[in-house]
Amino acid sequence: MDTIHTKASCRQASLAIRDTLDIVGGKWKLVLLMTLRNGKRRFRELSREAEISPRILSKELQELEQNGLVSRTVCDTRPVTVEYALTDYSETLDEVLDALAKWGAQHRRKIIL
Amino acid sequence: MDTIHTKASCRQASLAIRDTLDIVGGKWKLVLLMTLRNGKRRFRELSREAEISPRILSKELQELEQNGLVSRTVCDTRPVTVEYALTDYSETLDEVLDALAKWGAQHRRKIIL
Repeated sequence: MDTIHTKASCRQASLAIRDTLDIVGGKWKLVLLMTLRNGKRRFRELSREAEISPRILSKELQELEQNGLVSRTVCDTRPVTVEYALTDYSETLDEVLDALAKWGAQHRRKIIL
Repeated sequence: MDTIHTKASCRQASLAIRDTLDIVGGKWKLVLLMTLRNGKRRFRELSREAEISPRILSKELQELEQNGLVSRTVCDTRPVTVEYALTDYSETLDEVLDALAKWGAQHRRKIIL
């Protein structure tokens, strides 16, 4: 069934997309969330795996934490280590992450053929 | 069924997300695509509706056109007008747009309650 896109519904959906992009927009946040799907990571592991500089990574993680998408746990090790993990709430983004990953793979196949 | 997220699958999905963000990332492209879902628009209409400055709008539209997501038609009117519309290929992004809009609305309800 083709959805009817009225001016009002498109306007509302555009504003909702802006809201989402305010929270997880930019180059890194969605990549970080996908990387953390494989399990909790320490800061340096994340920086290496997602190929993000420590300075940018710490800002992105802080914002993800503030929005309840990532948890930060200080481990009583010597030296102290900090672990980052996905929160239950971040699972509400599964559909977004899967749709973005699916399209990216599809688009790459299209432009390579 | 819970999907198993291996390190390799997360790595691949992260790269695919980067590919998608290379094409439609940033603050405006997804908002423009959602606005155009209601039908073709002239440049000034788009600038007004999506609240984007003409300078940024023209760069975003150019990139969307280069990636086959938006078509540009010059109309033989006096003065000449240019119309922008979604291409068939842009429909492959429907799932992404719908998931982003759904999450934004959901998140807004969560933080307002």
